[in-house]
Amino acid sequence: MISYFSEESSAEAVIGRMSKDVNPRLAEVMICLIKHLHAFAKKTRLTQEEWEYGIDFLTKTGQICSAERQEFILLSDTLGFSMLVDAINNCRPQGATENTVFGPFHVAGAPVRQMGDNINLDGRGESCLFEGRVIDLDGNPIQGAFVDVWSDNAEGFYDVQQPDIQPKWNNRGVFVTGANGVYRFTGIIPVSYPIPNDGPVGQMLGHLGRHPYRPAHMHYLVTADGYQKLVTHIFVGNDPYIESDAVFGVKETLIAPFEPICEGPTLWRAPFDFVLAKN
Amino acid sequence: MISYFSEESSAEAVIGRMSKDVNPRLAEVMICLIKHLHAFAKKTRLTQEEWEYGIDFLTKTGQICSAERQEFILLSDTLGFSMLVDAINNCRPQGATENTVFGPFHVAGAPVRQMGDNINLDGRGESCLFEGRVIDLDGNPIQGAFVDVWSDNAEGFYDVQQPDIQPKWNNRGVFVTGANGVYRFTGIIPVSYPIPNDGPVGQMLGHLGRHPYRPAHMHYLVTADGYQKLVTHIFVGNDPYIESDAVFGVKETLIAPFEPICEGPTLWRAPFDFVLAKN
Ligand SMILES: [Cu+2]
Ligand SMILES: [Fe+3]
Ligand SMILES: [Fe+3]
Repeated sequence: MISYFSEESSAEAVIGRMSKDVNPRLAEVMICLIKHLHAFAKKTRLTQEEWEYGIDFLTKTGQICSAERQEFILLSDTLGFSMLVDAINNCRPQGATENTVFGPFHVAGAPVRQMGDNINLDGRGESCLFEGRVIDLDGNPIQGAFVDVWSDNAEGFYDVQQPDIQPKWNNRGVFVTGANGVYRFTGIIPVSYPIPNDGPVGQMLGHLGRHPYRPAHMHYLVTADGYQKLVTHIFVGNDPYIESDAVFGVKETLIAPFEPICEGPTLWRAPFDFVLAKN
Repeated sequence: MISYFSEESSAEAVIGRMSKDVNPRLAEVMICLIKHLHAFAKKTRLTQEEWEYGIDFLTKTGQICSAERQEFILLSDTLGFSMLVDAINNCRPQGATENTVFGPFHVAGAPVRQMGDNINLDGRGESCLFEGRVIDLDGNPIQGAFVDVWSDNAEGFYDVQQPDIQPKWNNRGVFVTGANGVYRFTGIIPVSYPIPNDGPVGQMLGHLGRHPYRPAHMHYLVTADGYQKLVTHIFVGNDPYIESDAVFGVKETLIAPFEPICEGPTLWRAPFDFVLAKN
């Protein structure tokens, strides 16, 4: 019995073509994907012109990608898909610090600095003391945790976006905790910045009436033997974009206090403890 | 009331970010797309590694595209998405000839030939007489219809795929019907061929245990003033791939008789009438 293609059974026709010995997980993912794609086209009664627009959009999105730019990740980020995948895969126990998006600006191999060092090498921006502890769920300090931090500079650019302007490793560093679990470094209050906005994703945001800004944040990658890797930010709560992060990265528990301080070498202080869950 | 991102309300968080004055149709399509994408990720519990694989797959698919190659259309075709969009947009009245995929090998501006001419310029393959009428739903002949035809050669390649090997306009031509609505030309029995198989889509088909072949077909684009444009093929029914077209283009009503003939200048004859629906 030959079953040709029809609108009613379109997904089944495609799914039925898969051989029986396909990797079971691949089959599961593809079946679900095909069903949802077909349901989308039927529900919207997608026109031929809209299909062409979609093909063109995806093509342009692929073609603008380069070693320095990943427009499909940007698309995933701005559609909330990246944060959703993060949420699905990072269900931490109550009390552990929450994850958020990794972002495209981390650089592996940043210099390990002395506790308390200043990571701001271009001298711009308002200085801020970042400090706190890396602890477990019972509040015990974790010794030997790697606290890898990175932020934009006072103009809203990461050092890697301005290799000719900013000093190498500007606003980056790795700190290793001692027996008390404490980390401490001086940086600047980060500022909000737009995600790359001159490609297909920027155009999409424009058509949807959305701005491309991320609220100011300091990135943290915290790792320690025996504990789940933590990829997160702390956010500046009074940022104008705190409720409308272009990539949906903000979580309420990740908004840190940024307190003005009257004494000491910095203008601000941002205290925040990172609570790691065991592996 | 700030509503931050959570798995439960992930789609709503993204949809809620669209401004109120977005083009209503764009809003409709995007809302549906976002809901289905998020439902897909949740249902499959998509892992971070699978997400990375997907990003990489889409990026490669975009980067292999060129003036001569459209891998995203190939992806759409092999997932049955192109045929679905065709089905949604081409609901013809009972009795009218059905549509199928356009395919990537049409070339506008093929020479208008005399009725009965031979379009096979490389002299390879088994000759076949293609003939029939272009008629309306009541069976009346349509005068002045343009019958634009194209097929691969006996080796399974379109002329545009082998510009240095095949004569220009090999196995292509446009025929204009007279008062009796008749079209007639000599070509060859087309042969089955694989869609371009050396890119991400070919890899996907491999992982899914699917072959890349299309059953042999002659392409037709039939247009006439006052009638709906018809984009279709006729298929060779005993082709080994007739039940498993890699792009799902086969419809039962488009399988034409290919009859061996004992007299006349050709070895085969493929009679087929095209029934057009009014605009
Ligand atoms: Cu769906
Ligand atoms: Fe960032
Ligand atoms: Fe073809």
